[in-house]
Amino acid sequence: SSIGSESDDEDASRLNTRDHVQRNSRGFADFRVKRISQHQFGRREIDLVEQEMGGLMTLRKKAAADQPLAGARILVCIHINAQTAVFIETLAQLGATLRCCSCNIYSTQNEATEADIPIFAWRGESDEDFWWCIEQCIETESWSANLILDDGGDATNRMSKQFPALFRQLRGIVEESIPGVHRLYQMCSREPGAPSLLPCPAINLCDSVVKPRFDTYYMAREGIIDGLKRTTDVMLAGKTVCVCGYGYVGKGCSQALRQMGCIVFVTEVDPVCALQACMAGFPVVKLDDIIKKVDILVTCTGNKNVVTMRHFERMKSGCILCNMGHSNTEIDMSALQDKRLTWERVRSTVDHIIFPDGRRIILLAEGRLINMSCISFSSMVVSVTSCTEDVYLLPKKMASLHLPTLGAQLTELNDDQARYLGVNKAGPFKPHNYKY
Amino acid sequence: SSIGSESDDEDASRLNTRDHVQRNSRGFADFRVKRISQHQFGRREIDLVEQEMGGLMTLRKKAAADQPLAGARILVCIHINAQTAVFIETLAQLGATLRCCSCNIYSTQNEATEADIPIFAWRGESDEDFWWCIEQCIETESWSANLILDDGGDATNRMSKQFPALFRQLRGIVEESIPGVHRLYQMCSREPGAPSLLPCPAINLCDSVVKPRFDTYYMAREGIIDGLKRTTDVMLAGKTVCVCGYGYVGKGCSQALRQMGCIVFVTEVDPVCALQACMAGFPVVKLDDIIKKVDILVTCTGNKNVVTMRHFERMKSGCILCNMGHSNTEIDMSALQDKRLTWERVRSTVDHIIFPDGRRIILLAEGRLINMSCISFSSMVVSVTSCTEDVYLLPKKMASLHLPTLGAQLTELNDDQARYLGVNKAGPFKPHNYKY
Amino acid sequence: SSIGSESDDEDASRLNTRDHVQRNSRGFADFRVKRISQHQFGRREIDLVEQEMGGLMTLRKKAAADQPLAGARILVCIHINAQTAVFIETLAQLGATLRCCSCNIYSTQNEATEADIPIFAWRGESDEDFWWCIEQCIETESWSANLILDDGGDATNRMSKQFPALFRQLRGIVEESIPGVHRLYQMCSREPGAPSLLPCPAINLCDSVVKPRFDTYYMAREGIIDGLKRTTDVMLAGKTVCVCGYGYVGKGCSQALRQMGCIVFVTEVDPVCALQACMAGFPVVKLDDIIKKVDILVTCTGNKNVVTMRHFERMKSGCILCNMGHSNTEIDMSALQDKRLTWERVRSTVDHIIFPDGRRIILLAEGRLINMSCISFSSMVVSVTSCTEDVYLLPKKMASLHLPTLGAQLTELNDDQARYLGVNKAGPFKPHNYKY
Amino acid sequence: SSIGSESDDEDASRLNTRDHVQRNSRGFADFRVKRISQHQFGRREIDLVEQEMGGLMTLRKKAAADQPLAGARILVCIHINAQTAVFIETLAQLGATLRCCSCNIYSTQNEATEADIPIFAWRGESDEDFWWCIEQCIETESWSANLILDDGGDATNRMSKQFPALFRQLRGIVEESIPGVHRLYQMCSREPGAPSLLPCPAINLCDSVVKPRFDTYYMAREGIIDGLKRTTDVMLAGKTVCVCGYGYVGKGCSQALRQMGCIVFVTEVDPVCALQACMAGFPVVKLDDIIKKVDILVTCTGNKNVVTMRHFERMKSGCILCNMGHSNTEIDMSALQDKRLTWERVRSTVDHIIFPDGRRIILLAEGRLINMSCISFSSMVVSVTSCTEDVYLLPKKMASLHLPTLGAQLTELNDDQARYLGVNKAGPFKPHNYKY
Repeated sequence: SSIGSESDDEDASRLNTRDHVQRNSRGFADFRVKRISQHQFGRREIDLVEQEMGGLMTLRKKAAADQPLAGARILVCIHINAQTAVFIETLAQLGATLRCCSCNIYSTQNEATEADIPIFAWRGESDEDFWWCIEQCIETESWSANLILDDGGDATNRMSKQFPALFRQLRGIVEESIPGVHRLYQMCSREPGAPSLLPCPAINLCDSVVKPRFDTYYMAREGIIDGLKRTTDVMLAGKTVCVCGYGYVGKGCSQALRQMGCIVFVTEVDPVCALQACMAGFPVVKLDDIIKKVDILVTCTGNKNVVTMRHFERMKSGCILCNMGHSNTEIDMSALQDKRLTWERVRSTVDHIIFPDGRRIILLAEGRLINMSCISFSSMVVSVTSCTEDVYLLPKKMASLHLPTLGAQLTELNDDQARYLGVNKAGPFKPHNYKY
Repeated sequence: SSIGSESDDEDASRLNTRDHVQRNSRGFADFRVKRISQHQFGRREIDLVEQEMGGLMTLRKKAAADQPLAGARILVCIHINAQTAVFIETLAQLGATLRCCSCNIYSTQNEATEADIPIFAWRGESDEDFWWCIEQCIETESWSANLILDDGGDATNRMSKQFPALFRQLRGIVEESIPGVHRLYQMCSREPGAPSLLPCPAINLCDSVVKPRFDTYYMAREGIIDGLKRTTDVMLAGKTVCVCGYGYVGKGCSQALRQMGCIVFVTEVDPVCALQACMAGFPVVKLDDIIKKVDILVTCTGNKNVVTMRHFERMKSGCILCNMGHSNTEIDMSALQDKRLTWERVRSTVDHIIFPDGRRIILLAEGRLINMSCISFSSMVVSVTSCTEDVYLLPKKMASLHLPTLGAQLTELNDDQARYLGVNKAGPFKPHNYKY
Repeated sequence: SSIGSESDDEDASRLNTRDHVQRNSRGFADFRVKRISQHQFGRREIDLVEQEMGGLMTLRKKAAADQPLAGARILVCIHINAQTAVFIETLAQLGATLRCCSCNIYSTQNEATEADIPIFAWRGESDEDFWWCIEQCIETESWSANLILDDGGDATNRMSKQFPALFRQLRGIVEESIPGVHRLYQMCSREPGAPSLLPCPAINLCDSVVKPRFDTYYMAREGIIDGLKRTTDVMLAGKTVCVCGYGYVGKGCSQALRQMGCIVFVTEVDPVCALQACMAGFPVVKLDDIIKKVDILVTCTGNKNVVTMRHFERMKSGCILCNMGHSNTEIDMSALQDKRLTWERVRSTVDHIIFPDGRRIILLAEGRLINMSCISFSSMVVSVTSCTEDVYLLPKKMASLHLPTLGAQLTELNDDQARYLGVNKAGPFKPHNYKY
Repeated sequence: SSIGSESDDEDASRLNTRDHVQRNSRGFADFRVKRISQHQFGRREIDLVEQEMGGLMTLRKKAAADQPLAGARILVCIHINAQTAVFIETLAQLGATLRCCSCNIYSTQNEATEADIPIFAWRGESDEDFWWCIEQCIETESWSANLILDDGGDATNRMSKQFPALFRQLRGIVEESIPGVHRLYQMCSREPGAPSLLPCPAINLCDSVVKPRFDTYYMAREGIIDGLKRTTDVMLAGKTVCVCGYGYVGKGCSQALRQMGCIVFVTEVDPVCALQACMAGFPVVKLDDIIKKVDILVTCTGNKNVVTMRHFERMKSGCILCNMGHSNTEIDMSALQDKRLTWERVRSTVDHIIFPDGRRIILLAEGRLINMSCISFSSMVVSVTSCTEDVYLLPKKMASLHLPTLGAQLTELNDDQARYLGVNKAGPFKPHNYKY
């Protein structure tokens, strides 16, 4: 995909996207995207990824006639790209009306912004643009959201603060991210007697059976390689890497990097995760003890200030620093604003930070998620998690929608075996709390 | 370890262990083991494995003075070998009195039967011996069990049926296996109104945070290679393997076999497990479609009659057939008793089953668990799971006891980070239902 | 790197690069590149990769003062990108004068064309441009080549045919590719008595000790993942892949794809390579038997017409077809020109080929090398192979130049050990024909 | 296999094998083995491994009628076990007469000593026995060797020194090991003018195309896991391992141990091998820098005194020390004879060496090869290398004999492709010096 080309950057300086009303071939103008002329190119992208998303396409076929989402008016605030476009279009085909904006100022894939649905998103929004776009999706003269599909909690937060009356009429919130879920829990005041501030049921997608594995482990495993390659072209074999954090993201990153020939070290806080790292053959070290020999440093702790000036000062020149965890807290970005340091942008998501002694740190995506800002979602993962996210309607069985795409042949229990196991022949086959 | 040597078999025919009263150097005679003269050899084995079991040894040091298990009279019915000997001795050092027998007629490591604790176990017990040994551990004139530590539920079952009065006075049951847990649930009648037959709290060790990973995944990963090699010396590289079942055992077996160069296929019933197999790069097939080209067939479904005459009849000559799942139900052993088939024992745990057309199937351990009958428990795993099993007293934090043994350096949160994450600096660091 | 952005394509149609004389800031104009204004951006790219190329940078420092290449006038015809720019600049710093063109019409990284050295190369040259660029590097009024550094043999061939007098005065040829080496052997007529047409010594870089491993195996291992991701964003986990050919490229591709979760099958002609594939756990199959279930087909046989209409007709819709072998012979491109088929370009190196029944094959790079046309050389590999290529001057010991960059600590033999092994303490440590 | 059982050791003390004439059921008595009564048990072992050795069995079928080895009188001095028994019997079936002894005092698998061929070998020969056995195979009243098949050079050396007249009449020598080949080269005096002491052609099996890969890499990959498990039952996951030497054996050991979850470090002398270790993701360190944290130390350098008292003194208690390289030179055994140290034998191939401070080093096989003394040859490897060893008669094509056993489907070139590649359709497909 044509990501971060200079020409985009040039255009961005010439015109203000927010003020630039465009119109598609059918005369529709209720959107703001970079360049509607790219749409046809984006359409081909979307066709391409539909082939990957077997689960969603099956769902469209099965449920489109029933219009199960008729009446749903959804404020969608997620990453906007060809993969999520297929998801968005599926929601529309199932009967919902939607208004869409991006949950991240860097992650929008400009050419994938489908123009018959109101979308307000472009790569490189300013902070002010970001909130403006969200507000375009909360209400218009003729439409107001009764559901939120959020990734990070910003849309939910904005609506609760600025549109309290609308917020109280919400019918449901679906939240994708752990920090977003955390915010929702804070709304349900846990002080005895205090009323909840949450006006409606909220679904925590992180509780989905397959989410941690599919949307984090597999994603991280492919994303870390792709992200590092596209931004830096670094040869991975032989590089010394430190992966901070050995949760699902850390597990995926560590395994993928080792398989590419990296020498991988891990840091951990939690003893069970640390034990898992050991049992997988990764030395568990303290960052301070290893920092001087690290070529690539990857954070995925979900924590803040994991890498600080104490570490920056001891890094090798040319050390690549990137974040696969959440938001941009893991690397102490404020410390890098130090006046002694010179920033030089070498690619759209790559900065050299030059120290007085000439050493350079190569910072990716300004400490934000590299798999969001640099690469697009993997279609398969989006399809798997989209299908299995809504745990109330479409539980684990949805996983089986993807097996034909992968050519897998499920074995079936016979009556005797089902009886022996004490399960139904059609499943579920495991107790509810089984850890896949 | 001296496994399956012919001389053992010879001895077994010469004397009846059950009737053969022996005495150790201190005059103690309350036990029945193969040959007490082997004890000193066994002692060195036990010394050897103590070095592996950092967690248990730390526990001995920390808690021996407090005698936290004083008053506990434990009927221990588990696999008996050098590793579990360290566990048994730890229980004694913490203040318990014990009587021990084996949960499996094949798995006892004869020379590891420590003779100052009453142990009734030898490799190759008859069925009658098996139950006799259990009864020696239920009560004596001067002792009766108030706790059961069981693996498979046989001791619990025997006590409930034959010693109901004693059973009702039990203070607790700890069960290690999934089938054993299943039996316990059946005792708690789920019909409304019917009283539970379970007289005391029971701890399901399979619920332990680390159990599925450590006692199954890691164990399977090393056990399948060890089990196949010791019994058959087969070169693994290039062999076509079918692993039936992709739970934790199947995951461990599949990964280990592939890394040794096997071409691995998987069968599954559960769509989520099947999807995981696909995402790990294993073709998911039906056994009937692959059986003709399989060199090694490994069952680990926990189900019954997964491999039947329909499959035996189509196997290649020389196909190795073994079970890593539970008990001996997975392979249809009754079908193999067919009169048309000739059995030839080539090693103590290896039978050739010869078909009328001359084809041979190589059956390991008569369809029982190869990692129990052929190899000993891995000390590290026993130490990890022993330490973390008792989830009420010694939760996840116990995992950290093993990190120094592995040379791992845990990172500590600072105050600010702990506050940011909303966790205690000393842990736990994850919500209770986190899927490690 | 900003590869294949639409704006480049637009520019390409607006102006004819060959006729467009540009001038750099120092007034130098002896070159033809896409846009000299991109040069500063390219400079930062080159700075970035210099950090990766420890071996070449060490060589510059060690040898620049001696000017060992003074007097060398080199026609350089290789891939032009940031990595080879560092190599080209190293040759200049060691005293050579050079004129450079590209050996491939698609592989030039436009912004990396350094403008103080005469370079004639841009992405998307026409065939006519291609030969014109080569001729600009053979001779000018004031300069003529006395050495050729060639990759594929086109420059050597052109010079021998069109500039025979100059060709006879050549002092040496260095050839990187196997087909190029093949052409050189054809020039040395093997008919008894017939004189060689080769006027000078030629060095076959493929004979270098480290070349097959470093320039093919490691490159392939990283390149296949990068190439597939950048062009298609496909999620790799769970995909069924067939890798045609299990030489060094095939080995690298197969291993990398499996580690990303692909289900990998291999085809082979050579029984030893086939045996190696088996021993690594890859099923060796015939393409005809597997084609219907393949999601991604990768050719790396070095052969022609390995994938033909017979296969195209049976492929799944959405099957990705790409070549990691040499040139564009492996996939039968002429068959794909069939009038019944519709071609649709979805990205600059991605075509959908649509069959009458609606099935789509996704063809990458028009059957050319995806790791040349889509991604840039990996700096580390270029550095390793550049340092070790010149087998006469700088043999295996050059490998040690890269070890400090990787943080490796070599062990040294003591006198006694060296005597025992019968080798010199400073190496070489292996016989000349040792197969690393 | 009945490895290291106590009963064998007991028997060994009761009777002197060398003096104990036994007779098989056919009255044949020209052999000395442990217990001829075990023969039938051994026969079943041999039947078992024949199934693995597809290449040799095919060779028997193809060539038995021609008796191509008629007239060959072979002194066979190799490891004696079920696998080599199949090889030995194949030589006999092809027409040779043989007398066989073992090249290693520990490696004989007693029950696999086939008794219709004169074999002189048992596990645990004394040094004196060892040479006596060799001499029984050099000549008898009615037979004298005209060919030697040697592994290590001891038989060749003995014959040249003690039977010089016979030695000068030899027709050929085949040597399997690198040290043995080294001795042969020393016999061909390299001083100008000095005559060679070698009376006949000698074949260096280490030059075979597939030998390094199959007989070292694959063997090491499976052997290191098997050897460590059988001797120590150690859990591998999480252990810190140092592999000294990264040749083919080191490559196999390192990869296998990492895949079992070990944290693997490598030491190397040769920069190219060191670079390969880095590119595979192994930190290359100096032994002195890592020794304090090593749990398992594996030598495979082919060198002497790689591990010395300097290292022993700093090892952790419980460190396992073993050798996968050649002979017993790698670990400085003489230093371990120090009077301050106490040796305690815990299993037949496991010694604890106890230091004054109580620390224990766990030494395997007294520093000899663990894959020879503890485990048996892998049948598949013996079959592959046996078939491909004799490079004059049966070159690379022999590899294809094994493909049907592995279920591999070779692809065939068509005429056009063969012409394009310039090779014969039936192979060979690669130049002679191609590095598979």
